[in-house]
Amino acid sequence: MRFFDCKTAPSPRRVRIFLAEKGIDVETVQVDLASGEQFGDEFRAINPDCVVPALELDDGSCLSEVIAICQYLEDQHPEPPLLGSDALERARISMWNAKVEQQGISAVADAFRNTVRGLKGKAVTGPEGYEQIPELAERGRRRVLQFFRRLDGQLADNRFVAGDTFSIADISAMVTVDFARWSKIDMPEDATNLRRWYDEVAGRPSAQA
Amino acid sequence: MRFFDCKTAPSPRRVRIFLAEKGIDVETVQVDLASGEQFGDEFRAINPDCVVPALELDDGSCLSEVIAICQYLEDQHPEPPLLGSDALERARISMWNAKVEQQGISAVADAFRNTVRGLKGKAVTGPEGYEQIPELAERGRRRVLQFFRRLDGQLADNRFVAGDTFSIADISAMVTVDFARWSKIDMPEDATNLRRWYDEVAGRPSAQA
Repeated sequence: MRFFDCKTAPSPRRVRIFLAEKGIDVETVQVDLASGEQFGDEFRAINPDCVVPALELDDGSCLSEVIAICQYLEDQHPEPPLLGSDALERARISMWNAKVEQQGISAVADAFRNTVRGLKGKAVTGPEGYEQIPELAERGRRRVLQFFRRLDGQLADNRFVAGDTFSIADISAMVTVDFARWSKIDMPEDATNLRRWYDEVAGRPSAQA
Repeated sequence: MRFFDCKTAPSPRRVRIFLAEKGIDVETVQVDLASGEQFGDEFRAINPDCVVPALELDDGSCLSEVIAICQYLEDQHPEPPLLGSDALERARISMWNAKVEQQGISAVADAFRNTVRGLKGKAVTGPEGYEQIPELAERGRRRVLQFFRRLDGQLADNRFVAGDTFSIADISAMVTVDFARWSKIDMPEDATNLRRWYDEVAGRPSAQA
């Protein structure tokens, strides 16, 4: 099994934290996104979508998409459970992880990818070129702040994003907060539940991954 | 258990097809998206994100997000499996469903929501207002066609989207193709694998849901 990572990128970091929480050691290959290594023939043969993370399995096939990789790892290494222990918990975690991806991560990515100079003509991940849309960056900024408010409300009644236990939804949300800082977007000062939660999850050893 | 649906909308249709494939009967409540019923106090108390589908459970709590609802239903009604039968199949289906959501459905939604007159000031689902961005609609159109090419390649070697068996990934992809037609985007004429697959899945009785 080989894990294709980029040490500086937010999406593979979700998998790195997941691996750290599970205590799984896996052969890791760094893909240099800054120099465009993901578009080269070698990596394209592994993942035609040209994105990390990717997990190459022993049969040579490849898994991409964070949630699919984590699901596979959870099946192989059930403890500690990060995707839930019963049907209802699994569904709630899946729901919150999806909300974080759609309302959080994708909004941060809109804000970031549509403004930074280095991504001109590359505003969408993957092999095809797309021009930046400044209005979309602005929309992204507004959506991120709206999402932080939403999350603050959820965390008023819950220790973790999906309830009483730490899960993939916390990993995804913590990475969202850190990724947002790349675009100078921070948690609102008065989002006290969100800040209390962030301090707890960012204090776990896995957050260094 | 109550299923909050809107008969004309693509996202809840994914759950309707899932229910039909499983042969599950559930009390269904229609939410009139056209008149803005999703923003009213009654539905907002059920799902503060103001979107369908939503599944209200017997304890009064609510699940939203298609994948979470389907996961819960699969746990309660395992046969026929639509999320996979072993670890690798589960991961592959999860991966393809995620690709369809990110590369397909979200691109179609960008194309649709940023152009139609009825969604002026409502370009993003949910309770907050967002203006339409015509450039994003154009980007969406390009991305949909790119995704159709990608899917055509996958279906050259596979009967179904995630391999040999019909799954949630097929449901999501079929709904993407039908939703794209709302914006007059169709499968390319020469995408023969995609068209062969579409004819097969659209011919299943569940596609009428």
